Amino acid sequence: MPEGDPSVGTVYLVGSGPGDPELMTVKARRLLEEADVVLHDKLPGPEILGEIPEDKREDVGKRAGGEWTPQEYTNKRLVELAQEGNTVVRLKGGDPFVFGRGGEEMEHLAANEIPFEVVPGITSAIAGAGVAGIPVTHRDHVSSVSFVTGHEDPTKDESAIDWEALAATGGTLVVLMGVGKLPLYTQALLDAGMDPATPVALVERATWPNMRVATGTMATIVDVRDEREIEPPAITVIGEVAATREAVVEFLGNRTGELADHDGLGTTTE
Amino acid sequence: MPEGDPSVGTVYLVGSGPGDPELMTVKARRLLEEADVVLHDKLPGPEILGEIPEDKREDVGKRAGGEWTPQEYTNKRLVELAQEGNTVVRLKGGDPFVFGRGGEEMEHLAANEIPFEVVPGITSAIAGAGVAGIPVTHRDHVSSVSFVTGHEDPTKDESAIDWEALAATGGTLVVLMGVGKLPLYTQALLDAGMDPATPVALVERATWPNMRVATGTMATIVDVRDEREIEPPAITVIGEVAATREAVVEFLGNRTGELADHDGLGTTTE
Ligand SMILES: C[S@@+](CC[C@H](N)C(=O)[O-])C[C@H]1O[C@@H](n2cnc3c(N)ncnc32)[C@H](O)[C@@H]1O
Ligand SMILES: C[S@@+](CC[C@H](N)C(=O)[O-])C[C@H]1O[C@@H](n2cnc3c(N)ncnc32)[C@H](O)[C@@H]1O
Repeated sequence: MPEGDPSVGTVYLVGSGPGDPELMTVKARRLLEEADVVLHDKLPGPEILGEIPEDKREDVGKRAGGEWTPQEYTNKRLVELAQEGNTVVRLKGGDPFVFGRGGEEMEHLAANEIPFEVVPGITSAIAGAGVAGIPVTHRDHVSSVSFVTGHEDPTKDESAIDWEALAATGGTLVVLMGVGKLPLYTQALLDAGMDPATPVALVERATWPNMRVATGTMATIVDVRDEREIEPPAITVIGEVAATREAVVEFLGNRTGELADHDGLGTTTE
Repeated sequence: MPEGDPSVGTVYLVGSGPGDPELMTVKARRLLEEADVVLHDKLPGPEILGEIPEDKREDVGKRAGGEWTPQEYTNKRLVELAQEGNTVVRLKGGDPFVFGRGGEEMEHLAANEIPFEVVPGITSAIAGAGVAGIPVTHRDHVSSVSFVTGHEDPTKDESAIDWEALAATGGTLVVLMGVGKLPLYTQALLDAGMDPATPVALVERATWPNMRVATGTMATIVDVRDEREIEPPAITVIGEVAATREAVVEFLGNRTGELADHDGLGTTTE
């Protein structure tokens, strides 16, 4: 068992949850306080980032000039900071391992002999549906739920996503990074034989104060997106479970304890 | 917008996370303190249940005589307690909507006009893999991850799970409630053409103090389960990502901040 070099700091790969500061874990909260440096991008959201003292924060998301920081820079910076003896929190929206590139960062840390710990967070893929009154699994309807990235173009050969297989599972599908290419993958799923009447919900900025929900069907959801001007970050929830919202929303409270209202959590466009 | 009857209490459907009390959300912690009654089963685990004062706790899991409380009893009890004006926490292991029957409880509450709120928790399906050094998604290997229940018998006609479709997604598969029927669904996946060399990990009691991890391949994992005597609750992680653990475990710390040791987090049987 390696004892590790005591002069090297630990890196914590921490999920911040979907955005509501109260949906951070107790451990994430504690580590944000204890950390010397917090490396983050924009996804944790304004409320959580606003709670971290400016002098600890290092933004490795979009940089001045609109360019993205390459992953290599983030990897290098994590190692550098730990080698200088810092306790480092790498803060990621949702869970670090759900389309969050946490796997690559973990591998890079281990390859450089930096001790690290994984601190899971609540993924938007489950919580975004849940707070909108949509259970991703349901005993009566589904035995599986699949999370998939929507940013690959399904008409391109290099797309690694088999939409036909996903449709064939019969389970709930939750698409992340899937606002822009919604027309492409809904078409791919319809081509694979999915029923056009299948309920679909878009949940934008789930658990943020300005969260919005829009619902439709596989046949209508692209129009709904356009009318409501849904923008990232949002998840697309596809499956019978998406209809549950209608049955429960009248009694569903939001994070402030209020029942759903018509501009926010309760807004629904068919 | 319904104002609700002020004499009726609110029910909070709360996920407790995989078991480590520090992986509860800040909100779950607060609500456990504020609640008049906490309805729970065994899945939140001994540490979390141990923190809740005895006089607030009501166990709706396994009862004296080894019988399970029917879901109808839990549904009825939630409504009853709220109608008596109590603030009720319905505490569920992991996330309430990942094979947790939270959907049914939510529908029952709404049908009985009881105001409720959903408080997502960290699901064992993602966190169980993560704390073992396994990212459920990975840019280099997979564009999707599917969660599926393992308690259905795949040789029975009434099984709603299409293992062939799940294998065809090419993504990571995480099976819950899948210790007992491991031989059946691994066979179903192999029959569907999955490579017998595909890495597999079993993570037992993830984030509990006595967590164990055992790894193998689709060809060997049933023997590994038997040799290591892996028991529920455990998740089965199937896919290339399961091999990531080997590459990183030497530098992976556990929840106490120690690096992985050979009896616990670090234990691996091939
Ligand atoms: C790069 S992925 C990271 C996902 C993150 N690791 C998680 O577990 O939630 C970014 C995508 O996550 C989803 N997302 C993240 N936060 C969200 C939120 N608060 N509401 C809705 N979708 C969100 C969106 O689909 C967004 O395009
Ligand atoms: C009825 S399901 C509920 C799942 C829960 N709602 C969740 O999100 O984790 C029970 C199954 O969850 C998994 N599970 C729950 N807690 C676990 C833990 N701490 N470690 C490993 N598996 C766990 C096991 O597969 C178990 O059979």
